[in-house]
Amino acid sequence: MTANTILTLPNAKPYAFEFPLATTALIIIDIQRDFVDPGGFGSIQCGNDAIFFKARAIVPTVKKLLDVFRSVGGHVIHTREGHQPDLADLPAAKRFRQLSAPNGHHDMGIGDQGPMGRLLVRGEYGHDIVDELTPWPGETVIDKPGKGSFWGTNIHRILLARGVTHLLFTGVTTECCVSTTLRECADRGFQCAVLEDCTQGFDAQQVTTSLDIISGQDGLFGFVASSTDFFDAVNESLTHMLTPPATPPVVAATLDAPMLSDLALPSIDELVSQYKKGNRSPIEVINSVYDRIEKYREVDPAVWIHLETRESVVQQTEELIAFYKGKPLPPLYGVPFSVKDTIDVSDVPTTAACPQYAYTPTTNAPAVQYVLAAGGIFIGKTNLDQLATGLSGCRSPYGVPHSVFSDKHIPGGSSSGSSISVGAKLVSFGLATDTAGSGRVPAMFNGIVGFKPTKGTISAQGLVPACRSLDTITVVAPSVPDARKVWQIIAHHDPDDPYAKLPHTLPTWHVDFRGFKQGGFTFAVPPLILLEMCSPEYRSLFKKAIPLLQASGGRLVDIDYTTFSIAGDLLYEGALLHERVHCIGQKFLQQNLEDLHPVIRALFFKALSNPPSAYDVFRDKELQTRLTREAQLTFDTLRSGIDVLVVPTTTQHPTVDEMEDDPLRLNSELGTFTHYANVVDLCGVAVPTCSYTTDDGTELPFGITLLGGSGYDAKVLGIAEVVETAFREAFGIKVKLPV
Amino acid sequence: MTANTILTLPNAKPYAFEFPLATTALIIIDIQRDFVDPGGFGSIQCGNDAIFFKARAIVPTVKKLLDVFRSVGGHVIHTREGHQPDLADLPAAKRFRQLSAPNGHHDMGIGDQGPMGRLLVRGEYGHDIVDELTPWPGETVIDKPGKGSFWGTNIHRILLARGVTHLLFTGVTTECCVSTTLRECADRGFQCAVLEDCTQGFDAQQVTTSLDIISGQDGLFGFVASSTDFFDAVNESLTHMLTPPATPPVVAATLDAPMLSDLALPSIDELVSQYKKGNRSPIEVINSVYDRIEKYREVDPAVWIHLETRESVVQQTEELIAFYKGKPLPPLYGVPFSVKDTIDVSDVPTTAACPQYAYTPTTNAPAVQYVLAAGGIFIGKTNLDQLATGLSGCRSPYGVPHSVFSDKHIPGGSSSGSSISVGAKLVSFGLATDTAGSGRVPAMFNGIVGFKPTKGTISAQGLVPACRSLDTITVVAPSVPDARKVWQIIAHHDPDDPYAKLPHTLPTWHVDFRGFKQGGFTFAVPPLILLEMCSPEYRSLFKKAIPLLQASGGRLVDIDYTTFSIAGDLLYEGALLHERVHCIGQKFLQQNLEDLHPVIRALFFKALSNPPSAYDVFRDKELQTRLTREAQLTFDTLRSGIDVLVVPTTTQHPTVDEMEDDPLRLNSELGTFTHYANVVDLCGVAVPTCSYTTDDGTELPFGITLLGGSGYDAKVLGIAEVVETAFREAFGIKVKLPV
Repeated sequence: MTANTILTLPNAKPYAFEFPLATTALIIIDIQRDFVDPGGFGSIQCGNDAIFFKARAIVPTVKKLLDVFRSVGGHVIHTREGHQPDLADLPAAKRFRQLSAPNGHHDMGIGDQGPMGRLLVRGEYGHDIVDELTPWPGETVIDKPGKGSFWGTNIHRILLARGVTHLLFTGVTTECCVSTTLRECADRGFQCAVLEDCTQGFDAQQVTTSLDIISGQDGLFGFVASSTDFFDAVNESLTHMLTPPATPPVVAATLDAPMLSDLALPSIDELVSQYKKGNRSPIEVINSVYDRIEKYREVDPAVWIHLETRESVVQQTEELIAFYKGKPLPPLYGVPFSVKDTIDVSDVPTTAACPQYAYTPTTNAPAVQYVLAAGGIFIGKTNLDQLATGLSGCRSPYGVPHSVFSDKHIPGGSSSGSSISVGAKLVSFGLATDTAGSGRVPAMFNGIVGFKPTKGTISAQGLVPACRSLDTITVVAPSVPDARKVWQIIAHHDPDDPYAKLPHTLPTWHVDFRGFKQGGFTFAVPPLILLEMCSPEYRSLFKKAIPLLQASGGRLVDIDYTTFSIAGDLLYEGALLHERVHCIGQKFLQQNLEDLHPVIRALFFKALSNPPSAYDVFRDKELQTRLTREAQLTFDTLRSGIDVLVVPTTTQHPTVDEMEDDPLRLNSELGTFTHYANVVDLCGVAVPTCSYTTDDGTELPFGITLLGGSGYDAKVLGIAEVVETAFREAFGIKVKLPV
Repeated sequence: MTANTILTLPNAKPYAFEFPLATTALIIIDIQRDFVDPGGFGSIQCGNDAIFFKARAIVPTVKKLLDVFRSVGGHVIHTREGHQPDLADLPAAKRFRQLSAPNGHHDMGIGDQGPMGRLLVRGEYGHDIVDELTPWPGETVIDKPGKGSFWGTNIHRILLARGVTHLLFTGVTTECCVSTTLRECADRGFQCAVLEDCTQGFDAQQVTTSLDIISGQDGLFGFVASSTDFFDAVNESLTHMLTPPATPPVVAATLDAPMLSDLALPSIDELVSQYKKGNRSPIEVINSVYDRIEKYREVDPAVWIHLETRESVVQQTEELIAFYKGKPLPPLYGVPFSVKDTIDVSDVPTTAACPQYAYTPTTNAPAVQYVLAAGGIFIGKTNLDQLATGLSGCRSPYGVPHSVFSDKHIPGGSSSGSSISVGAKLVSFGLATDTAGSGRVPAMFNGIVGFKPTKGTISAQGLVPACRSLDTITVVAPSVPDARKVWQIIAHHDPDDPYAKLPHTLPTWHVDFRGFKQGGFTFAVPPLILLEMCSPEYRSLFKKAIPLLQASGGRLVDIDYTTFSIAGDLLYEGALLHERVHCIGQKFLQQNLEDLHPVIRALFFKALSNPPSAYDVFRDKELQTRLTREAQLTFDTLRSGIDVLVVPTTTQHPTVDEMEDDPLRLNSELGTFTHYANVVDLCGVAVPTCSYTTDDGTELPFGITLLGGSGYDAKVLGIAEVVETAFREAFGIKVKLPV
């Protein structure tokens, strides 16, 4: 069975239920001790021992289902009904209605002390899931105050983030929390089936009729099937397993250097799967990573600002192995990663490629902390354009790095080292940043994916600010699924980050269970005249990309692009750039101007010499607000908006020499299609699409960026996955790594 | 029956269902032609004519229920399932699942052309509600894409806005949309009952069991009752009707002048109810309003900048009467209102109390348009502090108005005329604005309610900007219910207002079905040291208010008030004030400085002479972002936050002379408790609490403001209603109007 496997439950009601395993989640509703063990809330609620004990009987079958999902790395969602210890999330009606029944059997209520702890209170023994089904790291647990799973939780955003389209329902009780959650999922477009031998309730008639209501009327809410069908389908699929596992993209490079196996670092899922199967040891991988890093130093010595020693990393990896011995592995177990040197790693200097600015933090940035907690292995801090200023990647006192494709061409910036570390397969992914394109442009120049989420959705604490109101942590990774994986792990609301968006303010939308390729999506492209900014190769490659987008389900529509061109100018031609001076510190810049990298010095000298007026700032902030609203409407699909705006990631691929000759103008040109994204609050993913050969025979990468509206990250990633696959199948960048 | 009526359905399952009529909504689910008439989607879905026709049979009983709710002005919610004509809100699973059943009876799907138009498509004949139940103006219609009513709609915010705590369910089908919506409501704390003879489904067993599930297990989701019980309860209540109708507050005033009846303008609901019963004619009311306006001119000639002529208003009123003859009346039918002269009314000059700034708009501001569409009668534009700058209310070239309580004391500003027009009962309510306290301070000085909603929840189009990022349209009205009524009519998202908050970003919360008085709420007050800013009377009256808040259900808790003091300083001591210069226009101010009101001139001269730097603006914007997050956490009740912050609305009540002697310092002091609200995105309602007598025997009003977190308007209003009632019962400002 693989991600492409489609399973069918032929005996489902009202007709056969078909689902793609890769986008189907197993959802286990409320199999908590409080609902299935004696003395909990369920036994009070049920009021009949004989019926009550039937609920516990489904657990072994649910466990078997869970094992299957775990074995293929499928999506698993556990839910738990319960309340905060202070009962702040418990409505009075829920608290008192059942207790107040004059002749009822509710002799204790929610929050009261029972034999397994306070009834339905989070943190209590009774509230937790039964031992057999204890969630594994990386599995989603939804703590919900309602019978349904959507009120007061972020389940909808989680299902969207994971790209789920289908759900298999199990758990208790059929008539209450299972039915309610299934109805909520159905309204939001998920295709749902309940497995009737994996659910149970507190009244036989209610269970039967609840299932009838789901599948009746030709499938009013969904399907009713059985686990027998499921296990048969799984066995059938295993027997006929033909499709080989998907391999990650391999990136072109033509430098002369000794070669290592391309398979040193497969996709994150594949790597962790190899660990799980015992086919590979993290120590072996870490050593091969260090071998490669050492070899790559001959190709490009300017990738790292700080590199952990092999010995210390091996030792940490040994500790990780020891810690997880005999336990389920977390999702980034033994996965090596790099960190841009503007993001804090505890006890490692943060330099921002500016020694005068350097400091040594005592805590990890939350994004780093989430990765480490998920088992990631920190390898080092990567080089960048000084103070994260620039799209070149070469403006650093720590050496001038170059693209993994060519030692003559710029790597792109500011996140140059991060993108090289991934493009050269020195690590599995990198944490970078993107204010005006710093994560997308270098991703493109190194043939990898750069995913810039919606600003304010990943904590920006522990991040050297460029423009605080725009800065966004960005994931650079070899493929869209890898970037998505890391994003899911680091994207959590941080109330201590003043720029973090409140979770309830992020949008949700209904899904198309057929996926984006079959279900379709709409896209727009910049006006032809703007594409004239691109080099002839880029222009031609971008034009060729459009039919492939259409063949991938895309429908090209017209939009008014003015919003985005004005917003782009606003950042570098307007007053907004000067937020950078404030954030880095006007005094610091004045005092250290002489010691800065010459290009950065020139840039800040210009800025400091011509500050805008306060009124200019208010004017541009007002314009930004207007443009942001326009951008929001552009992506509002309920009002004829588009799903994604597709642009060439940048305009051309300059050489290091060209960049040095004309640093400011070229930098500005490179940002033509990236500058505005954070200004008007878009998210975007840069995807490599193909490579081309220059006149002197150098193979260079090309790519496009898919931009989406604020909070539509999961949608943009979903479309990007389809597009990435299409381009890989069509053009398959055939590539040899330099080491 | 009155607002205080509590009805009981004694035979409900699992036990008697009790509900306060005032906060109970009748919800009628999907009684659309498409679901109950032949040839629609329902008949296809049901697939059995005999069963299908039973659904239509509930309509007469539902109509009888509706009549009762309409006769008492109760809350009515209609829902309609359906989709946009382009089907953009129709998930693929919903579109295809039933149609794809191999042996199903779905021979047509959603969007297909049926005999009553495209099935379940908005705007089609079949999609609409059956004739007998056609919604009246002011009744809520929820257009929902799901079976439930919460996905893709704003029903939760609407229920909260109306203060609904209980719901009576009727409609089709029991097993599908009725059950799903009831479950959603139950999760959110609403106490729900379904009337079993007012609901029907497409399968007898499914209907019976669906009802059993709701009321089973001691009331798992709610109650099941019958309309017979309901009508009995209503008749019983009518027989025993003892409580007289609640009267609006009457405001103290001691000016010597001829008196008119206090009952000239009762509450909005009472006025419209009198119209409905034919006890009163709008023409008579308009004439009495004009009589009073003319008499009040002798007391204070500086209330209006523009007054419509009696003749033209009488003529418009006659046209209104003719238009609605024989039709149900809209919620503000024949209700006279004033508009602050910074808000556009088509074809009437907008002066902002600055003749040099004046222009004549050709369209109404959306807020004005909503009021007119709801039957409101526009009387005139009211005076204000020039360019909406100040809390005095006296800085206008159109005369110096004074408090309705005293011709020596300031009326408060900038919305002075608006507040006087309401305080003197010249109109039923006023549309004003509030940037730094402009709606709250004058409301207090005239003994009325000033409700400043969350910024961005009412369109600010057609509003002269003071600080665009802070300006908020505000309702001034005699009581909290009146202010709430108007707010519900004007608070709609406007995509053309760049500062409008997107609807999905506004918070929702679970309700306590017992209401705020019994259910309780938490509140905080400013630190004692800050109350030292208040005059001795104010300090003492504020302290006396606290026990009454506690007796009204309030629990006093400690908070860190620093956020709010810093935010207050930020506006007038920091750079944010200078947004005002940008919005009004730096050039305009420079060119017209000499012609401005002397105090306004001095203020802008000072601002123009000492502009902050661009970096100051970025610094203060960053600080504002941090403080806004802190404020948000202060009001996050799921993290030990408070429901409301209670402050004295202002610090003292200066005389006109005192204000003229020391205009800038006094103005700043008056804003101690108002300046920060929009800076950190709070909502607030200023409520008059009592009056006091000055040394020279003048009776002056005092009041408090309840501030809540962004988007918690309905909660703040709910608590304010309880508090207003408590203060009226305890202190009952006994008052005679000057005219």
